[in-house]
Amino acid sequence: MSKYLNKRLNALKPYTPGEQPRDAKYIKLNTNESPYPPAPEVALVSRKETQMLNLYSDPTLKPLKEALADRFGVSPENISASNGSDEILAFAFHAYGEEGFTGPALTYGFYPVFADFFGIDYKTVPMKEDLSIDLDALTSSDRAIVLANPNAQTGLYIEREEIERLVSSTDRIVIVDEAYIDFGGESAIPLTKKYKNLLVTGTFSKSRNLAGARIGFCVGDEELISDIERLRFSFNPYNLNRISLAIGTEAVKNEEYFKNCTDRIIASRESFKRKLSELGFSYTNSRANFVLAKKDGIEGKELYTRLREKGILVRYLGDELIRDYVRITIGSEEEMKSLVLALKEILKEAEI
Amino acid sequence: MSKYLNKRLNALKPYTPGEQPRDAKYIKLNTNESPYPPAPEVALVSRKETQMLNLYSDPTLKPLKEALADRFGVSPENISASNGSDEILAFAFHAYGEEGFTGPALTYGFYPVFADFFGIDYKTVPMKEDLSIDLDALTSSDRAIVLANPNAQTGLYIEREEIERLVSSTDRIVIVDEAYIDFGGESAIPLTKKYKNLLVTGTFSKSRNLAGARIGFCVGDEELISDIERLRFSFNPYNLNRISLAIGTEAVKNEEYFKNCTDRIIASRESFKRKLSELGFSYTNSRANFVLAKKDGIEGKELYTRLREKGILVRYLGDELIRDYVRITIGSEEEMKSLVLALKEILKEAEI
Repeated sequence: MSKYLNKRLNALKPYTPGEQPRDAKYIKLNTNESPYPPAPEVALVSRKETQMLNLYSDPTLKPLKEALADRFGVSPENISASNGSDEILAFAFHAYGEEGFTGPALTYGFYPVFADFFGIDYKTVPMKEDLSIDLDALTSSDRAIVLANPNAQTGLYIEREEIERLVSSTDRIVIVDEAYIDFGGESAIPLTKKYKNLLVTGTFSKSRNLAGARIGFCVGDEELISDIERLRFSFNPYNLNRISLAIGTEAVKNEEYFKNCTDRIIASRESFKRKLSELGFSYTNSRANFVLAKKDGIEGKELYTRLREKGILVRYLGDELIRDYVRITIGSEEEMKSLVLALKEILKEAEI
Repeated sequence: MSKYLNKRLNALKPYTPGEQPRDAKYIKLNTNESPYPPAPEVALVSRKETQMLNLYSDPTLKPLKEALADRFGVSPENISASNGSDEILAFAFHAYGEEGFTGPALTYGFYPVFADFFGIDYKTVPMKEDLSIDLDALTSSDRAIVLANPNAQTGLYIEREEIERLVSSTDRIVIVDEAYIDFGGESAIPLTKKYKNLLVTGTFSKSRNLAGARIGFCVGDEELISDIERLRFSFNPYNLNRISLAIGTEAVKNEEYFKNCTDRIIASRESFKRKLSELGFSYTNSRANFVLAKKDGIEGKELYTRLREKGILVRYLGDELIRDYVRITIGSEEEMKSLVLALKEILKEAEI
């Protein structure tokens, strides 16, 4: 830190991303990536765009907006897109944080960081006993509201009717972060036609197998989108590079590949849950591409360390509420088999 | 704009990028892109990374930092990188804007927008008669200082000794935006070893032929870089996508291709200046990959329009100080020939 840094930022605590080892030594089940490669058309589009990288991308993001609008049954004016959904979430905090934000105590760890970055007051409401989000507590907030559905960390899902009840009972902005919606949840996007205070964000990182391309988007009323676009054009109008813009557009069009990949992950998740039960683990009833799991007799941190020694990376999140747990990304069928074997070995070694 | 938008942002005026037509109808000399494709290795690297897009990129940006450190003779701890240099400039405004920023009246139009975005007071100092930057006026500022060298819009270059005089005579942060330094200027990067208040920013968009990949960077004292990294990790840690990170790293290594491309552009620029003289134009003595030119008897806006009708896009910037001028990017040898022909026709048609 230099003496020149804005004093307000002295205390800013950056987000800590999961480990991203640069060798392929590990089975990587720690950052909720897809185990499957991008849709096959993506390679063709990428090759074509690489030849034209001397030219800027289209700052209006028109082709991607049109493809997403088509898929969601909204108009391109209801959509903005960004360099990962982190960027659009940051814009939304900046746009709507004047009177503060509130969110659940246990959720995506970046929300309080965005708030801090922009000098926004951020308050949390406690989780319910079963680690689910206390919607009533959020509803009674006099601030803008942010929540992830399914929730980050737990994977717990809130039915669309519940989301509608929340959005309709407040005049505050509600941001619903649907990074994990495609693994068995129902999106709140159709509600954006009815409610002017709802902004839904999404990402291509999980269900579209494109974490490395950094593509995020949001859907909402035209007026909200014009706010977000105003911030985008005041920060980085070429925020989506040429290749990501093109392959994102292409990926949206291949619905069959998308469905095939997400179906496989859902099937693996449910089968993994059964295995966890057999091994005496408890876990959240996740509808995301990960499961939060624990086993009596072994702490989360220790389980993480032992798996790492066996070449498997999972995420130990460290939050007091879930200190007994590790978060495990649903990988390929083969990776999940290796994981189950490793878990059996660990339980045997530890004599649990 | 929605009623939910932070009131301070109601008046925010976004940056207007140059036209980016999506067809290939025009000879495009309006946004200072390189007319040459990226280095040949880039295609190979891009293809390899495309297969791995399901995985996040390395948030430490290690390979790119190492390649740039190697090239500039500094350490990786002296470097940060971003999704275009716009993003790193935004971070720098946020980090160092507590007591306001000052910059030249005529320069990159994004600086006042960054300031506005973060609620920072921004003041300009007038240009000298010859459109050059008034360094003495900047030096006497009691705010952080930003300038582009060569300057945006004019292409006018400030010798490194002059930059050093500025940096050494103030304890304020000085940001030197070197987007155009590789077309005949001498970088201020070596000065970052001596002065803790100097941050130099650069981009791969112009001299590395990678505008569409969105890669920017900055070089400075370790403490300044730790400020920028803190902001980067509090906004978007995966800010460089997997493909851009890899091809940026590769592009830095191919020094020969880089030199070949920049040499050609410099030669074309100087030859174009001679042609402009022959046609009776006046122009700034640009050391960038563009020239700011005017001709008595025809207004800048009209010249822009007439060129557009002939299929050539240049940039009419509209600022009162340069309302007679158009800014012309140096394109390929062939494109510059077409441009000179078009200019001759226009002068003839207008009987100037």
